[in-house]
Amino acid sequence: MSFRTIEWTDEEVVMIDQRLLPVREIYVKCRTYQEVAEAIKEMIIRGAPAIGVAAAMGIALGAQGIKADRFEEFYREYEKICDLLAGTRPTAVNLFWAVDRMKRFCLEHKDVRLEKLKELIKIEALKVHDEDLEINRNIGENGNPLIPKGARILTHCNAGGLATAGYGTALGMIRAAHEAGKEIQVFADETRPFLQGARLTAWELMKDNIPVTLITDNMAGYFMKKGMIDLVIVGADRIAANGDAANKIGTYSVAILAKEHNIPFYVAAPISTLDLALKGGDEIPIEERNIREVTHIFDCQIAPDGVKVLNPAFDVTPNRYITAIITEKGVVKSPFEDGLKRLFR
Amino acid sequence: MSFRTIEWTDEEVVMIDQRLLPVREIYVKCRTYQEVAEAIKEMIIRGAPAIGVAAAMGIALGAQGIKADRFEEFYREYEKICDLLAGTRPTAVNLFWAVDRMKRFCLEHKDVRLEKLKELIKIEALKVHDEDLEINRNIGENGNPLIPKGARILTHCNAGGLATAGYGTALGMIRAAHEAGKEIQVFADETRPFLQGARLTAWELMKDNIPVTLITDNMAGYFMKKGMIDLVIVGADRIAANGDAANKIGTYSVAILAKEHNIPFYVAAPISTLDLALKGGDEIPIEERNIREVTHIFDCQIAPDGVKVLNPAFDVTPNRYITAIITEKGVVKSPFEDGLKRLFR
Repeated sequence: MSFRTIEWTDEEVVMIDQRLLPVREIYVKCRTYQEVAEAIKEMIIRGAPAIGVAAAMGIALGAQGIKADRFEEFYREYEKICDLLAGTRPTAVNLFWAVDRMKRFCLEHKDVRLEKLKELIKIEALKVHDEDLEINRNIGENGNPLIPKGARILTHCNAGGLATAGYGTALGMIRAAHEAGKEIQVFADETRPFLQGARLTAWELMKDNIPVTLITDNMAGYFMKKGMIDLVIVGADRIAANGDAANKIGTYSVAILAKEHNIPFYVAAPISTLDLALKGGDEIPIEERNIREVTHIFDCQIAPDGVKVLNPAFDVTPNRYITAIITEKGVVKSPFEDGLKRLFR
Repeated sequence: MSFRTIEWTDEEVVMIDQRLLPVREIYVKCRTYQEVAEAIKEMIIRGAPAIGVAAAMGIALGAQGIKADRFEEFYREYEKICDLLAGTRPTAVNLFWAVDRMKRFCLEHKDVRLEKLKELIKIEALKVHDEDLEINRNIGENGNPLIPKGARILTHCNAGGLATAGYGTALGMIRAAHEAGKEIQVFADETRPFLQGARLTAWELMKDNIPVTLITDNMAGYFMKKGMIDLVIVGADRIAANGDAANKIGTYSVAILAKEHNIPFYVAAPISTLDLALKGGDEIPIEERNIREVTHIFDCQIAPDGVKVLNPAFDVTPNRYITAIITEKGVVKSPFEDGLKRLFR
């Protein structure tokens, strides 16, 4: 890939600023864990798996600066750092998964001397990054057989290289099909309000020479009716035990449109997105974001002063609309409950 | 109403510039029929009924400047003006209805001396304007019984005072319910790409103190699922004999979402929107507009340079998704074919 979503360089975490793409390609350097937390909140970095990676790196960055003589003292500070990172965004479960992993890792190495422990924590964060890349390649490989030759694929939001350590989940499947020479075409919903489709998905697919057509969110039904969409692939921010999947606002509507037009609707996500503690999607907390995302685009005001706005950032697609969930461990179809549980064996 | 969508002042047609709302409230003066045609093309004025009014006024403005001694000579020029106006936009049928009316009116008064005829043509154009206002009040009155007390109503695009001579079609129903003290609330889809919902519907409802909440197009399904939408009302740009209705892109998707959530879906339009010459909606031509509407918002670029974009401005909602069509002559329910025909008796 011709860009780096997030990486660790010396004592910094460097991220491409996803608020400024595609017009400006600026890399932001986070020198403290607080800056990493802020970057997640402000959506300099976004996408469930990428947020998990950022949190792990933020924790590792914070760990390097802890001044302590004994493990208990160290862990007290470490836990504070972990909790700050965990508090940045509420919906994507990969964030909590990464934080838990980093906490567990630290506790499992309580007997290592602190300077060595700091080094191991950093290595563990890099492992979260590298494993995510590997996971996405496996998602691509597992999902590829579901994509027919010449398929015209609709995707919503950005579940691509920019939403992960690289390669992507939904776009991972798309990349795998492209690499297999299937001559696919992608339709990208622009994905208001943050415009991940217009700004990020279109950008990264064009960089990889994968044919992409940009449409507004409200055009998806039109093109489905015209027979111009063969399947839908999206990512997920959290998947409940029954297969209900939270993803970027608008995904639920796309799923209904797909059902109405008898078009397969696929969700691609790593198993770190599964939250088997939740029975169904109704239990997934939905983040409400600043209304300025709706009333302004960059600095352009597009709505009246003082207008009332609601800005839920995610919605939940009930399992009955989902044809299959594609993970790095395999493809799960309805009934999802047993299939998803089996992935953890 | 606290704004004027379009009016004739002395020898000018004055329109509020709908491209600049809500941040700037600028009135554009058209001194020639060519300027009126350009204003329709560029969407300084938009909305099917308002386009009809603008075309009639543009024709009347053009007629004033025709230099001719005999009717045949006059009509040759008049017809050219009519045809230029008719060529501005392809989907809304009210435009052709207004042009045909102005042509017919002229032919019916061929024996009047030319200076008097010019005066009569101007009066006829003003009649198109005033009748539209009256029609909208009747749509409001006819539709009001369909709106329960306390209803939360979703609307898409702007079928309001700004889309008509005043009062509105879909928003006419909403205004009538509001005036009846029903304490309704409106959800306005922002309506990409031109943002008629964010820029126009929110603005004009706020001016009239009708409670309105702005959402992005892709949030409609989410709020329906949460039980926060009781009914949908939209306008139309052309309705075929079987009730299939063309309206702003995204309307079809909203109709599917409404059906999936068992929410009534109403179309409000004057009978000048009916095109009984077309059997079904598939015959309605769909305008493709400049891709810059999608890639830029005002001057802000939101998509990569050179990205492929499709920008259909309308879609067609098949009659099976429509609960009722509300016109100034009455409310028509399925089966639409007979009911719509009956309106013309």
